[in-house]
Amino acid sequence: MKRLLDPSSLRALARGCAVLGAGGGGDTYLGLLQALQATEDYGPVSLVDLDELPDDELIMPCGGIGAPTVSIEKIESGDEGDRLRHYLEDLTGLRVAALMAGEIGGGNGLIPVTWAARLGLPVADADGMGRAFPEVNQVTMHLAGISPSPAVMTDERGNLLVLRTVSGHWMERMERAAAVEFGGAASSTEYALTAAQARTATIRDSVSLAIRIGEAAGRAEGDPVAAMIAEVGACQLIAGKIGDVERRTTSGFAAGSVIIEGLGQDAGRLVRLELQNENLVALERGRVLASVPDLITVLDSETADAIGTERIAYGQRVTVIAFACAPIWRTEPGLALTGPRAFGYDFDYSPVEELAGATP
Amino acid sequence: MKRLLDPSSLRALARGCAVLGAGGGGDTYLGLLQALQATEDYGPVSLVDLDELPDDELIMPCGGIGAPTVSIEKIESGDEGDRLRHYLEDLTGLRVAALMAGEIGGGNGLIPVTWAARLGLPVADADGMGRAFPEVNQVTMHLAGISPSPAVMTDERGNLLVLRTVSGHWMERMERAAAVEFGGAASSTEYALTAAQARTATIRDSVSLAIRIGEAAGRAEGDPVAAMIAEVGACQLIAGKIGDVERRTTSGFAAGSVIIEGLGQDAGRLVRLELQNENLVALERGRVLASVPDLITVLDSETADAIGTERIAYGQRVTVIAFACAPIWRTEPGLALTGPRAFGYDFDYSPVEELAGATP
Repeated sequence: MKRLLDPSSLRALARGCAVLGAGGGGDTYLGLLQALQATEDYGPVSLVDLDELPDDELIMPCGGIGAPTVSIEKIESGDEGDRLRHYLEDLTGLRVAALMAGEIGGGNGLIPVTWAARLGLPVADADGMGRAFPEVNQVTMHLAGISPSPAVMTDERGNLLVLRTVSGHWMERMERAAAVEFGGAASSTEYALTAAQARTATIRDSVSLAIRIGEAAGRAEGDPVAAMIAEVGACQLIAGKIGDVERRTTSGFAAGSVIIEGLGQDAGRLVRLELQNENLVALERGRVLASVPDLITVLDSETADAIGTERIAYGQRVTVIAFACAPIWRTEPGLALTGPRAFGYDFDYSPVEELAGATP
Repeated sequence: MKRLLDPSSLRALARGCAVLGAGGGGDTYLGLLQALQATEDYGPVSLVDLDELPDDELIMPCGGIGAPTVSIEKIESGDEGDRLRHYLEDLTGLRVAALMAGEIGGGNGLIPVTWAARLGLPVADADGMGRAFPEVNQVTMHLAGISPSPAVMTDERGNLLVLRTVSGHWMERMERAAAVEFGGAASSTEYALTAAQARTATIRDSVSLAIRIGEAAGRAEGDPVAAMIAEVGACQLIAGKIGDVERRTTSGFAAGSVIIEGLGQDAGRLVRLELQNENLVALERGRVLASVPDLITVLDSETADAIGTERIAYGQRVTVIAFACAPIWRTEPGLALTGPRAFGYDFDYSPVEELAGATP
């Protein structure tokens, strides 16, 4: 066991997950409240390394699917994780040894803790993205050739779906359609894998990373934003205020764009973020400042708390930062799955470090 | 065994299913071609009475789900029935003894024959509607308290879903959403039940009825429409031509309305049919001539072949008939599930015999 996820580490985890969410992955405030309550009711959850788990037992990647704008109003009933675990074990004939966040970003980094508390299971120190991405198949397990099937979905009413699809693309399509019909959000597990497979098919130590990021922000005195930028090695894209938000909840996503008007040193500048649950690209007068799979995160300029795309609102004082994604996303198959072209943009990916260094 | 479903009886069956489809249930021409090919490839299928089947073995209600307008262009791959049977047996631990049409109406009355030929199974002489209805839960099994779960859906690509829902309403919602995402149509089984249960929870002898209706039309000389009206005990609502069709394929249904302009004795009359896969109501200047759950069927005035809502087109010479549904649909729970109010109409059901006798 690496550590017990006590209330203090959960608060840091929530803060770190918000930063790693790149705007998405669901609300961490709600996720934190649920995790705190569950660990109070059932006892704290152990964070374990994948090396500690039996080779042939299952890691259950899990979390919420749908539009974050819906998730903040349509709350889980609490027993979703029980059903997902029950059916996954029944379908595979294998024991689930630990839960794992499908994506460490946003509230989805905390949901496994809530469910694990109730199930008496540990949480693995790993995830499938090292951030949050909008689509089900945008996970490292997909790149590693792990099958998305059998996937299990459920809602707060107790409806349950088992999905076996011919591809990750079809898993995304069918789960998204089901999430929409459930009201815009649901709970799911897919890409289940053994602990042995997980050791090479996931982003490791990402729960620890999120806690470290959250703790750094908590410790910072004077300038939390500067501390956050230093902690994650980010470039600052702009500091200013939210001048416009155009967001719609559609097809199971929160999509749209956000305009940040520069203030102070950035006065006169306008940066536009385009979003699909997560912040996908940052543009300034047609120039790309940063793009997926690198992380673009909007921080509250006072507190350095990351603001999710579902909470962003006119007038907020924000600092937009961008930082490097996990190395696997910069490989050719990684970019094919999560680079700008995967989201319909007609430009190639450039690392944020290069873009930030380029003259406008 | 009641009979072997040879090519001649399949042709009669197709014709009868079209009449019992009340405009819906999918195209019988395509359904017939598939059934003829499958029985040629794998041998003829036995039609059996439910009393012949072992009490504790399963009857698998099955068919297509989605918009008939899509089904005539998006063809099954042939192995859908194999997958549905395999997963249903696996999920229940029971052997499937026979396939059964979820609805005898339209192409869905023939699909079980096609799949049964390949599986070497018989088809039960029964169905869940005695006609076709648009929604998954509008079946006699629902009234009998049979659970819709576990349901299995699949598409021609090999994608597969198992659904366990908290109600028949949720089964309809989730299957419809999945059918839409599959491209507008898919294959499914739900409301599986034992042979013992099926003896009281289905409409019995409906395959035989459809064959008898089809044979009557085939035998008729001179006036096939009159023969059909006599065979099913129908009222003639209007004879004329299709003057207008407004039809859209939306949310997994073919919905809209059709105007029939009277000719000959009916000159000057206008009758409007409103449809959701099936013909739901027939209206003349605001007066209801017939409504669900009674059957409203559009016949070709020359051949008495029933025309499905997906094939209806401007200029066709047609005779619209209406006839009584199976008695169970005229009970209070039957009307709650399939009467006009179940489809959003603000009027109570009256039997077609009474409406036809009323002075306009």
